[in-house]
Amino acid sequence: MHEIHLRPIGVVRSAFQMAAGTPIQAALAGEKEGSVELFEEFAPGLKDLDGFERIWLLYWFDQAEWDGRLAVTPYLDTTPRGVFATRAPSRPNRIGLSSVQLLGIECNVLRIRGVDVLDGTPVLDIKPYVPRFDSFEGARAGWLDSVSTGGVVADDRFERKRNR
Amino acid sequence: MHEIHLRPIGVVRSAFQMAAGTPIQAALAGEKEGSVELFEEFAPGLKDLDGFERIWLLYWFDQAEWDGRLAVTPYLDTTPRGVFATRAPSRPNRIGLSSVQLLGIECNVLRIRGVDVLDGTPVLDIKPYVPRFDSFEGARAGWLDSVSTGGVVADDRFERKRNR
Repeated sequence: MHEIHLRPIGVVRSAFQMAAGTPIQAALAGEKEGSVELFEEFAPGLKDLDGFERIWLLYWFDQAEWDGRLAVTPYLDTTPRGVFATRAPSRPNRIGLSSVQLLGIECNVLRIRGVDVLDGTPVLDIKPYVPRFDSFEGARAGWLDSVSTGGVVADDRFERKRNR
Repeated sequence: MHEIHLRPIGVVRSAFQMAAGTPIQAALAGEKEGSVELFEEFAPGLKDLDGFERIWLLYWFDQAEWDGRLAVTPYLDTTPRGVFATRAPSRPNRIGLSSVQLLGIECNVLRIRGVDVLDGTPVLDIKPYVPRFDSFEGARAGWLDSVSTGGVVADDRFERKRNR
């Protein structure tokens, strides 16, 4: 099967310079605000997005690496789990997915709240959050149902061992 | 900013051979069942996933094209919308996102329900669906709040004009 090539459409701006201390999920990032700076050529694609309360950010975990391991010990656990049963950044295709609140749009810049993404992260796609398609309140969540997520932040276990 | 290279980890098997007639969203696909055939080398990464009721499929819209347009008329509407305010397959990075029910896992094959994806679609990632991270029941959904999605299926407007 062929290789797939992607080109970033913009970049995340946040207060987080390294994995250690960064909220591990957008929903746990509380009031942290940040922004997405879309490259200017893509700004017309943001039309009509301001009516949505939340958006999906798809981004590239450029500061993570994947060494081929299919079991990882996620931030929220002490037991190794199959990588596809986790949201860990170290995975075969290092695409990140976060639902964040959309506060406003000015030209090519989106102000967002609930940012769990490192500053400088390349953005791959933005999609509207649609409860009819995306919200399944009571869905069973395996090992994650038995762990507490209160106040959890990341450490550097998945981070590339060098400066940006 | 550098190019990003992805490699599919598997393929979707569904009853849908072409866009026309395919449900436009997993949540609208009802009882349609299908499967994900992960390439065997990735099967160990599925450990612990069976405890989750739903999964996110991230896949590559290989039958869509993007011609550089940043306004698209989505299946659910007659008005052109900014591409990032839609879930249309024709977009700068053609990554698809669907939440589907996970019925069971056998070795490298996941049985799923609520499939809105074409047969043969390359799979990029699988993540667990976690209500705490992903479920926001009442979120305002812009232009999509005023359209009905009942019984809507796709047509061929975003499809590559050739046989697979």
